[in-house]
Amino acid sequence: MGLDHAVTKPHEALAQHLAGKLDDVNILIRDRMASRHAPRIPEVTAHLVEAGGKRLRPMMTLAAADMCGYDGAFDVHLAATVEFIHTATLLHDDVVDESAQRRGRPTANLLWDNKSSVLVGDYLFARAFQLMVETGSLRVLDILSNASATIAEGEVLQLSAARDLRTDEDIYLQVVRGKTAALFSAATEVGGVIAGVPEAQINALFDYGDALGIAFQIVDDLLDYQGESKATGKNVGDDFRERKLTLPVIKAVAAASEDERAFWKRTIEKGDQREGDLEEALRLLDLHGALEQTRQDALGWAARARDAITSLPAHPVRDMLSDLSDYVVARVN
Amino acid sequence: MGLDHAVTKPHEALAQHLAGKLDDVNILIRDRMASRHAPRIPEVTAHLVEAGGKRLRPMMTLAAADMCGYDGAFDVHLAATVEFIHTATLLHDDVVDESAQRRGRPTANLLWDNKSSVLVGDYLFARAFQLMVETGSLRVLDILSNASATIAEGEVLQLSAARDLRTDEDIYLQVVRGKTAALFSAATEVGGVIAGVPEAQINALFDYGDALGIAFQIVDDLLDYQGESKATGKNVGDDFRERKLTLPVIKAVAAASEDERAFWKRTIEKGDQREGDLEEALRLLDLHGALEQTRQDALGWAARARDAITSLPAHPVRDMLSDLSDYVVARVN
Repeated sequence: MGLDHAVTKPHEALAQHLAGKLDDVNILIRDRMASRHAPRIPEVTAHLVEAGGKRLRPMMTLAAADMCGYDGAFDVHLAATVEFIHTATLLHDDVVDESAQRRGRPTANLLWDNKSSVLVGDYLFARAFQLMVETGSLRVLDILSNASATIAEGEVLQLSAARDLRTDEDIYLQVVRGKTAALFSAATEVGGVIAGVPEAQINALFDYGDALGIAFQIVDDLLDYQGESKATGKNVGDDFRERKLTLPVIKAVAAASEDERAFWKRTIEKGDQREGDLEEALRLLDLHGALEQTRQDALGWAARARDAITSLPAHPVRDMLSDLSDYVVARVN
Repeated sequence: MGLDHAVTKPHEALAQHLAGKLDDVNILIRDRMASRHAPRIPEVTAHLVEAGGKRLRPMMTLAAADMCGYDGAFDVHLAATVEFIHTATLLHDDVVDESAQRRGRPTANLLWDNKSSVLVGDYLFARAFQLMVETGSLRVLDILSNASATIAEGEVLQLSAARDLRTDEDIYLQVVRGKTAALFSAATEVGGVIAGVPEAQINALFDYGDALGIAFQIVDDLLDYQGESKATGKNVGDDFRERKLTLPVIKAVAAASEDERAFWKRTIEKGDQREGDLEEALRLLDLHGALEQTRQDALGWAARARDAITSLPAHPVRDMLSDLSDYVVARVN
């Protein structure tokens, strides 16, 4: 989200509105990632937790609870829970992808080692469940354990789907729900659940988080082919070089001639990439309008997010969340 | 546990007594490790779950519930939960230790890869929490999320403690609780909790599992220096070669002369191991009676396990658990 607006950005407006609660979340996070016995734990997590993430996911929980008139303290617990689960998946992702950079810093598994990343991730995951237990809500535990299973399942699915040309848009959507949307939708849903609002409103909150998360990931995948390195912190074509079958390529493969299919097979499935292949990939994406179609999909999901919450009672936070859904796709609109 | 007894071994007696329930556990495990979207998941887990483990941990839960007169179905859920958590930690351990063998088979991360081991472990962990949520008991969730945190914390602690000569018996005990005892004690405790027995009995069940797990791990560490490869599936001195500071060495270091300390510093801390070093290590362990003291510690913990459950009402399963605590140390007695 590298655009500059004259007005306050929606996630900043949310952060201002929720500032007191966000402070409480940060205090709770620091408190719970401490370990009396294993000082390495906060060393590893501080690296990620303090790395200046936008706290977007915990903010979703706080925003949903606030909008639903919740006046207790467990929104803070659940926001910290969501951040812990997110941080645990990042730590495990770093091991998995052997990625050298995350948020522009060296990843934890280079600074430390694979061992620490796996085990500290496990620790945060356990701490997340402890926080949920404290809320006393079995429904919250149900929602977030289901989300955790969906996340892991999506990541495993990605292992087999990422380099397989048979991967279609349905499979892509399952992977994206696992990678991104499942935690967003759980984050907004539990905010409504602890506030005790009617089921229709809880469903609307789920739908908002789900669609926002999907829009967010599609924009990410699109920018990989057309963004500027400065704005995204990544280089154009990283996904291509890493042979990731993301939505633009899936669309281009679906429309491919026999020769084009052979190109994708060689570069993505076999990983035999040569000088000029990225340019050829970009040409094929353009030829079939794959980037434009992907952009339309992202806009469609953002619209679904916005529409999902129109039925909720009027509230300043509702308007901020609505703005956020526009903002997520503003980078490609 | 490679000894041959003319009589039935206690874990076999337990398995016979609990056969119907164990079948239910196996059915539930197979059902819940399936994944509609990611067929790789059961492929990876089947490797471990079907590998002929003794199901010792789930049996602890079934035994405790049975002994406490529980007549519901959630003991099966919790037994499967415990096995899932155990399997998840094995998968993550395989990544961590880069170990090439587990239970005499190639580890999952060689057959598959690190990615699958981490993510499938995460999936099983999430599935474990889903199973707990189904029991509807927040107390059970509290116990097992605490145990999960202790397990991860113990493993992280081991990373820093394993090759540090300052590691003392207190730290060793914390590591062992994390590696082994925390899941045993949680397994027996939740069996009592779902049966709704008085607190004193629940505490006794916890103490039994805790002491049994500690005895079990100490025996393992002792046999590494004096067992036969055939009985343990490991080679004598594996821990020494892997520079693991286990209880026998901790005792020898505590009693070491200056020269001996330099030897341990070189071989364990610095990892500079030469021809004849294992023989010298064994000589020093013998010189200070470290193996005999370790054996006495194991016997002491086994006795604590046995004593913990003497206060429970008479029951055939109680006698089997008592026999089991003797059996765990029979290999070194």
